[in-house]
Amino acid sequence: MNAELRRVIEAIGEPDAAAAAAARARQSLLTKPTGALGRLEDVSIWLASVQGRCPPVVPRRPRVVVFAADHGIAAAGVSAYPSEVTAQMVANFEAGGAAVNALARLVGATVRVVDVGVDRDTDDTGARYRVRRGSGRIDVEDALTTTEVDTAFAVGAAVADEEVDAVADLLIPGDMGIGNTTPCAAVIAALAGLDAEAVVGRGTGIDDATLARKTEVVRAAVRRAAADPSPAAVLARVGGADIAATVGFLLGAAARRTPVVLDGVVSAAAALVAASLAPDAVHWWIAGHRSTEPAQRAALDRIGLNPLVDLGLRLGEGTGALLAVPVVAAAAVTLTEMATFTEAGVSDRAHD
Amino acid sequence: MNAELRRVIEAIGEPDAAAAAAARARQSLLTKPTGALGRLEDVSIWLASVQGRCPPVVPRRPRVVVFAADHGIAAAGVSAYPSEVTAQMVANFEAGGAAVNALARLVGATVRVVDVGVDRDTDDTGARYRVRRGSGRIDVEDALTTTEVDTAFAVGAAVADEEVDAVADLLIPGDMGIGNTTPCAAVIAALAGLDAEAVVGRGTGIDDATLARKTEVVRAAVRRAAADPSPAAVLARVGGADIAATVGFLLGAAARRTPVVLDGVVSAAAALVAASLAPDAVHWWIAGHRSTEPAQRAALDRIGLNPLVDLGLRLGEGTGALLAVPVVAAAAVTLTEMATFTEAGVSDRAHD
Repeated sequence: MNAELRRVIEAIGEPDAAAAAAARARQSLLTKPTGALGRLEDVSIWLASVQGRCPPVVPRRPRVVVFAADHGIAAAGVSAYPSEVTAQMVANFEAGGAAVNALARLVGATVRVVDVGVDRDTDDTGARYRVRRGSGRIDVEDALTTTEVDTAFAVGAAVADEEVDAVADLLIPGDMGIGNTTPCAAVIAALAGLDAEAVVGRGTGIDDATLARKTEVVRAAVRRAAADPSPAAVLARVGGADIAATVGFLLGAAARRTPVVLDGVVSAAAALVAASLAPDAVHWWIAGHRSTEPAQRAALDRIGLNPLVDLGLRLGEGTGALLAVPVVAAAAVTLTEMATFTEAGVSDRAHD
Repeated sequence: MNAELRRVIEAIGEPDAAAAAAARARQSLLTKPTGALGRLEDVSIWLASVQGRCPPVVPRRPRVVVFAADHGIAAAGVSAYPSEVTAQMVANFEAGGAAVNALARLVGATVRVVDVGVDRDTDDTGARYRVRRGSGRIDVEDALTTTEVDTAFAVGAAVADEEVDAVADLLIPGDMGIGNTTPCAAVIAALAGLDAEAVVGRGTGIDDATLARKTEVVRAAVRRAAADPSPAAVLARVGGADIAATVGFLLGAAARRTPVVLDGVVSAAAALVAASLAPDAVHWWIAGHRSTEPAQRAALDRIGLNPLVDLGLRLGEGTGALLAVPVVAAAAVTLTEMATFTEAGVSDRAHD
């Protein structure tokens, strides 16, 4: 690990326990049976802790950062779409026409695309953080060099810094990259000690023959990763610049005491890596939605996160996390705006 | 069934199949893999069908109607709270201090309380729809007379009419009534042919002894209901004015071609009754959230609805349905605002 990332990790502290305790206490005074708001109560306590205030406020500036990259493994025929779609979708994000844009507008979030590895000719500013074009074909060669992994970590942490400096108060890591569920499955299988069959999913919707090919690729990748199980080595062998940058982003957000809503399997792969580097970072994150990719569950189970919504999405981009933003807001407004039993003159239950 | 309700039922038609077909076709053109938005795609097609337009619009005037009533069975000690809380919470709703108020403000909805059976002294306008004060103790006597059931049906349908006339474009039935999960469990058990043990839940959070008492009460109520399994008779024997009014409300909404998001177990009990009276009405409803009450699942399974969110809420009031309103909005904006493959210049998959 390079010195820069070590400084980020050393800056990660615990959320505010006093604010969490105050939120927990306030929940018990509100005009509802204790626990009747279910997971909204847990989220409100988490939000108080990461904001360091009780009652917490509704996040006003949620920000999605889509880390876009191509993957050499797409050439092995593991996706239903050709690699050129990555760059086309980046343009679609920038034009505001993708699902992530529509959902972001709905919930008051904004979207930024960071090209960390798209395989396209460009000299525009969107590519100033590009680590490399594409990545190695992970069944037969390394995805990245270890230097590139370090660079991607630094890019992600720098982007988190920029966003917090620009007063984002809720960060969402998004992703775009044809073939990207394949390295995610490989990274999660390698770190969690799982077989390829347990982690491979249908991504954008592949058929049985493609699924069999993808499983074989992940099996080969996991074998290649077995030589060095350290997180950075696994990312170099079978990951990608998008996953590595997201690791840096998640750690950077935690270091800046800024809450994160995780999205799908790319978020989960990065979170599993980041949690192994800095276990305290997990307290700054919440899982937004349940992906249909089995690797996501495997990763989230290991870091103890359970998604808030499950609507069968399998799109990535940050879309699933955006659907959880209103749940976070609901947690905030109930804790903040509800009357207490005393204020409302409502009889509380007979306490046992 | 009285003539008034029969007219409502006869007015219920099918949602717009052409709008649904157009929505389904548009989903396949948008810049995402087919099906990648999961249940949002189904909701968008439903919304197009009930709005009769494609693309559909985000509902602008969602309206919660809280049907409030007391239940004689509360005297049997089936709740953790005393009956006086019903009237106190009605005042809390009117002052804007309850969970339903906070969540309604968040999602752009408004709240109305209709007292159909609160056991309190009042002559204010909020009680002009009161069917009676409280209800009979359903383990030993009828909840309502059949005339009162008819009156409650009419009240609910009239309120739906009023709200649609006042341009509500999404209706949410809420509830308030200490003890109300007990008649809901009884109604659902009686109509679905289930044992008391299969439907009784912990309501606001009762202890084991209270749960045993509640189960015994529901068992006795189900025995009392067995003599006449017609929906109106079951409501008279073991239901309540809130459930019956909600039945009228759900049918009235369908007759006025206005979509409904169902809430928890009171919604589900009413929906089960309403669906048995008018099977086509179900097409106008969507299930908002999964309640912790087992009776809710039993009822929704029978009418083929599966809730959009599951956050462990057990509060009623309309709170769970309000959490689903952003999901409905998300379905609308993705279908409406996303670019097509052609518009965005994105390569679609190779179609098999």
